[in-house]
Amino acid sequence: MSVPRRDLTRQVMCGSVAIGGGAPVTVQSMTTTKTEDAPATLAQIARLAEAGCEIVRCAIPTASALEGFGKICAASPLPVVADIHFDHRLAIAAAERGAAALRINPGNIGSWDRVDAVIDAAKVSGAAIRIGVNAGSLDPEVDRMEGLTLSEKLVLSCASFVEHFESRGFDDIVLSAKAHDVVTTLETCRALSDRLPDIPLHVGVTEAGTLRQGTVKNSCAVGILLEEGIGNTMRLSLTADPVEEVKVAWDLLGALGMRRRSPELVSCPTCGRCQVDMIPIAEEVARRLESVSAPISVAVMGCIVNGPGEARTADIGLASGKGRAALFAHGETIRTVPEQAMVDELMAEIEARFC
Amino acid sequence: MSVPRRDLTRQVMCGSVAIGGGAPVTVQSMTTTKTEDAPATLAQIARLAEAGCEIVRCAIPTASALEGFGKICAASPLPVVADIHFDHRLAIAAAERGAAALRINPGNIGSWDRVDAVIDAAKVSGAAIRIGVNAGSLDPEVDRMEGLTLSEKLVLSCASFVEHFESRGFDDIVLSAKAHDVVTTLETCRALSDRLPDIPLHVGVTEAGTLRQGTVKNSCAVGILLEEGIGNTMRLSLTADPVEEVKVAWDLLGALGMRRRSPELVSCPTCGRCQVDMIPIAEEVARRLESVSAPISVAVMGCIVNGPGEARTADIGLASGKGRAALFAHGETIRTVPEQAMVDELMAEIEARFC
Repeated sequence: MSVPRRDLTRQVMCGSVAIGGGAPVTVQSMTTTKTEDAPATLAQIARLAEAGCEIVRCAIPTASALEGFGKICAASPLPVVADIHFDHRLAIAAAERGAAALRINPGNIGSWDRVDAVIDAAKVSGAAIRIGVNAGSLDPEVDRMEGLTLSEKLVLSCASFVEHFESRGFDDIVLSAKAHDVVTTLETCRALSDRLPDIPLHVGVTEAGTLRQGTVKNSCAVGILLEEGIGNTMRLSLTADPVEEVKVAWDLLGALGMRRRSPELVSCPTCGRCQVDMIPIAEEVARRLESVSAPISVAVMGCIVNGPGEARTADIGLASGKGRAALFAHGETIRTVPEQAMVDELMAEIEARFC
Repeated sequence: MSVPRRDLTRQVMCGSVAIGGGAPVTVQSMTTTKTEDAPATLAQIARLAEAGCEIVRCAIPTASALEGFGKICAASPLPVVADIHFDHRLAIAAAERGAAALRINPGNIGSWDRVDAVIDAAKVSGAAIRIGVNAGSLDPEVDRMEGLTLSEKLVLSCASFVEHFESRGFDDIVLSAKAHDVVTTLETCRALSDRLPDIPLHVGVTEAGTLRQGTVKNSCAVGILLEEGIGNTMRLSLTADPVEEVKVAWDLLGALGMRRRSPELVSCPTCGRCQVDMIPIAEEVARRLESVSAPISVAVMGCIVNGPGEARTADIGLASGKGRAALFAHGETIRTVPEQAMVDELMAEIEARFC
């Protein structure tokens, strides 16, 4: 297979985390606490980091958030990106307070002079800049052009901004152009990757909705892009606890065989054949596997007869029947255990074999 | 754009529902109740139908399920597929009792003679047959071949089975070849679509895991296939209430702009800028939109300043601030309403404009 496009971009450092140029695709999220409240925000960042978040972003809506932002940058285990809209002075101050990167949208900063002031501050502090464009904040000149689709306007806005940044000698840029629908997201990211093949892309569906719909939209859009070799870092927006965004992102990387942080769970959907209450058992195994880092596949099947054969590609698994369960590995039964003990036995066997 | 491959297959009827040959991509699920218990199964089918399920499958593990299956077929609002393993007599009996289709895996039926007896019964009753192959039940001859990947074995098994069915003059076949991982699923379905372009494909990831991981794997794999024009009908396996499978399937069809059953929800992920508790509000709107069938997009934004502009592609939306919310349409504020009444006001406006 040829080299994926994502590996052919330049590499940009966001603090200690590399984006693009052959670096692994990274997982980002954004805090939902008030940035003014540094302790609450740091506590949320700790939960995000534990779930596998690698870069975190905090909003700086007003000057009152800056002091908290400085404390967060000083104590965060993850590189912190400052999310700024409208006010270039907040971006400059955030760079001075230790932002690993600034996320700005040049289209709503007000003038090129102000954008240049932000670029110069980032140069001094060593921060990268993510140029983030969405439907609500296009390059005003581009937005006035007629006969263009939203996707074309997003791409033209990005190209115009990148040209400006590079003409000012600033290359540490990551691009994002987000839409809230899958079709526009695909069209835009594919076009960006064609037009600006050297710039790392931050991908995700914005305002994707609540947990279920947001998971579907992001998995579909970002899954398609990643499988095509597009996308260097991702933030999967969900109207939910941001820890869920991180879990979904890791599930997606695991599903595509790109990166795996915990075991893969193979579990049958249950049917009229099933003799145990599978859903809570599978949920319990899924929860307990979150603390296992071995990149194995673990099966939980509801049929002691078909289970081991159906799940023979799994490294280890359980197939339960009437009051007992077969513990199996690669389709072969290791031993039969009582149903009540089966999850403990499975976890002990995983511990013994793989940890 | 060229015609998607899915529209170039033959068309097969599953009861009153067309699969392939230009028919819309349909949503399937499978009951988890005992098929012996016809009232419980019919109650689950009613819930599935209400959520948008279009074809339902019931397991027939033993002869004792047949009587219930007959009652289910007689009273079900959806075409019912009989899911049979191992015992060809159960398949024949299910065809006689009104199955709209039989799902068998010829690889575990025991002999070609027995498969032929099933084919002949389906011819008489007018049932379609889904040939469903997975890793646990390959064509035994193919399984013995060395040096083949699982995906190649799945495709060769399907091709061998299809050839046999067609040589017996039976063409009403739908194919599925499922794996529990995304990469094998993609490789297999793409190869099947290349090799057997005339046969409708039933797609999905099998044993995909619990709600979150299963939603991610299915949205990613089936999303990629559908976007490439592959796949005529789908069942997205989840270890969860089967109604969830149907909701995820419709979210996916909506996300890809293929079919829409209820409004699209655009909701911001909340951040440190947000002045209301967005998650429960978005969840409530999502729940209330489930009973609206207009194919509109509805935004729920946490920022009264940026919300209307960011969500200007939405047909209607709410952006909340301090104690009040802007009700807007296509980016323009219609009126400002108190926060406590905003969801009711939004729903009333949707009712007045679109229902």
